[in-house]
Amino acid sequence: MKVVPYERIETAPVTTEGSAGCRIRCLIGPDDGAPSFTMRQFEIAPGGNTPKHAHAYEHEVFVLEGAGTVLEAAGEYPVQAGTVVFVAPQEVHQFRNTGAGPLRFLCLIPHPLRGMLGSCVVACGCE
Amino acid sequence: MKVVPYERIETAPVTTEGSAGCRIRCLIGPDDGAPSFTMRQFEIAPGGNTPKHAHAYEHEVFVLEGAGTVLEAAGEYPVQAGTVVFVAPQEVHQFRNTGAGPLRFLCLIPHPLRGMLGSCVVACGCE
Repeated sequence: MKVVPYERIETAPVTTEGSAGCRIRCLIGPDDGAPSFTMRQFEIAPGGNTPKHAHAYEHEVFVLEGAGTVLEAAGEYPVQAGTVVFVAPQEVHQFRNTGAGPLRFLCLIPHPLRGMLGSCVVACGCE
Repeated sequence: MKVVPYERIETAPVTTEGSAGCRIRCLIGPDDGAPSFTMRQFEIAPGGNTPKHAHAYEHEVFVLEGAGTVLEAAGEYPVQAGTVVFVAPQEVHQFRNTGAGPLRFLCLIPHPLRGMLGSCVVACGCE
């Protein structure tokens, strides 16, 4: 069993093209023996955003802190602490921080990604 | 895309033998088209607990609110908002609320559970 405060897990910059002001923590992943999916936490600085992209795997998101928006092809929606977001495979999506503080959210992905890598972001067993 | 505040998703009591004061919300699951894993949220009332059990599938947990403990075979550890817990397949585990308010946490499981049902809790595509 792994029991750890998230703050103790190191962060890394997200260097994917189109991202700005994003850092990632791999909270639970293949290095822990997780067999099916990976729990990541993103922190976006005020004014920052994740890339606008789509890929073959889903995201399951829970917003922990801050205020922002999530974009899909049909429009843009506000998100804040407690917002649940499901991004289906192949859906265009982008998160933006529109608040004054950090926008922090969990974003889980399946693994192994079985040839679905595409624009998969850094670390967390994606490579 | 599904974008919804968690409070709008209905709760159901957890009726698994050995649980006390637990309710569950299925935040993202098969009904949303999620292909790989299910995001559930548990809320345990003060003094309550999840069952002490083990099963063939893992849990990926993030504590959102409250104070409690998680038990494994080797001991018991405190948890609070921001604590990350990975429960490997076949590990004995139990969450207890030791605080004065609700203990609320995300607990994700793989799906379909491919014959691993065992003591799988209510709803969320487990049946």
